[in-house]
Amino acid sequence: MLERIRIVMVETTHPGNIGAAARAMKTMGLTDLCLVRPASFPDAEASARASGAADLLEAAQVCDSLDDALADAQLVVGTSARQRRIPWPCVTARQLAQQCGQEPGTVAVLFGRESSGLTNEELERCHLHVSIPTNQEYGVLNVAAAIQIVCYELRMTALGEDTGVRPSREMAHRMPQPDWAWDEPPATGQDMERFFEHLERVMTGTGFLDPANPEQVRRRLRRLFLRARPDRMEINMLRGVLTSIEKSRPRNDEK
Amino acid sequence: MLERIRIVMVETTHPGNIGAAARAMKTMGLTDLCLVRPASFPDAEASARASGAADLLEAAQVCDSLDDALADAQLVVGTSARQRRIPWPCVTARQLAQQCGQEPGTVAVLFGRESSGLTNEELERCHLHVSIPTNQEYGVLNVAAAIQIVCYELRMTALGEDTGVRPSREMAHRMPQPDWAWDEPPATGQDMERFFEHLERVMTGTGFLDPANPEQVRRRLRRLFLRARPDRMEINMLRGVLTSIEKSRPRNDEK
Repeated sequence: MLERIRIVMVETTHPGNIGAAARAMKTMGLTDLCLVRPASFPDAEASARASGAADLLEAAQVCDSLDDALADAQLVVGTSARQRRIPWPCVTARQLAQQCGQEPGTVAVLFGRESSGLTNEELERCHLHVSIPTNQEYGVLNVAAAIQIVCYELRMTALGEDTGVRPSREMAHRMPQPDWAWDEPPATGQDMERFFEHLERVMTGTGFLDPANPEQVRRRLRRLFLRARPDRMEINMLRGVLTSIEKSRPRNDEK
Repeated sequence: MLERIRIVMVETTHPGNIGAAARAMKTMGLTDLCLVRPASFPDAEASARASGAADLLEAAQVCDSLDDALADAQLVVGTSARQRRIPWPCVTARQLAQQCGQEPGTVAVLFGRESSGLTNEELERCHLHVSIPTNQEYGVLNVAAAIQIVCYELRMTALGEDTGVRPSREMAHRMPQPDWAWDEPPATGQDMERFFEHLERVMTGTGFLDPANPEQVRRRLRRLFLRARPDRMEINMLRGVLTSIEKSRPRNDEK
């Protein structure tokens, strides 16, 4: 779907923002950039800020009118921070991304001037308005930053990201589930029990564990290590540490 | 929750990126910006790009070391584009936001250098790595753009937006989330670093850790203990075990 999304920047004043927008688009896998009456383009500042996205700048379409930019678009979406006097169908960036996933044709997303955004007339050309929820005290997103967020949401939808988050009665300071392949197989229950026996032997040897009253320490350390779900290499490493402690002399006996 | 999130920029080269980051943060309602050894700060370019977020720049904490930036952080998260040789618990920006919503204390999110990101050593200070899914052909997000995306996801979660996320296929050997209340506060970043120093001292003393080649062991043990997110009593207990090892005589010397 990403190849069907056109980012349209209307009367952008600062060429640096055009470059930053191209980079934002390319990192998210979008390629179709259209500039309506840019103040300065091409421009060295745009190229510098584009970094590795120079190809998007080179391929960018430069238009004299919004008509040209939108001629083949089947869905036109305008970004707007302001409340309109006449309410317009309005979606969040996330909802927009979902909508784009279902569109068969070209979707144009319009971003306005740095100083004043899109005009009412331009916004009224749009099927939908999209807004990004911002701080009420200061909500003025940079135009390239707004493009970054919209492109990010588009990419997340395009990837069908399985974000792996469960609803939360979860414990406050516990770990979220890593979603990555691990490099080692998990330790088995037997591995864990042998480790705990070994740990207790060492703690008893050093005097840390009181054999008459070991329960509190034992329980808390079991909870800690079980929670971490060590893999086999980790548990072997911990066993190695314990063995080295048993074999070693205290420091002041060492040569 | 947004007031508990600290954005930490490490050795940022271009002051314009610091300004853009401040603006990205403020538009999303974040306020806590920390700069570790910035190349130039304060700087006119930073102020220009900050636009209406000058107050965040003024309040920004400038640190000489990552230790200072992380001393009171209970969860430390590093942004990383690269695949690590040793996999680390890794979440998406959206998952991170969900996690932050459940954290009772300060969460520090680290962003690295424009040219090279965070070092391996810096990434190993982190409980979690976060990555933003980018274009495989060109995935180099500008640092302020990455901050914009992370802050946007944090805001969406803080607003209770429907994130549209689905339940996860969890990795087999990862821990399910316990949903009972915890009994102790989590260990701080400083607690964890002191524990790691202590552990290394003991392992070096016993000969387990080869001082000439400590990296593999150090990295794997850091990953293990950071993943477990020890609480304060647990970390005190582990420190107690280490101290008892240092003080103890070997068994055959005991009476």
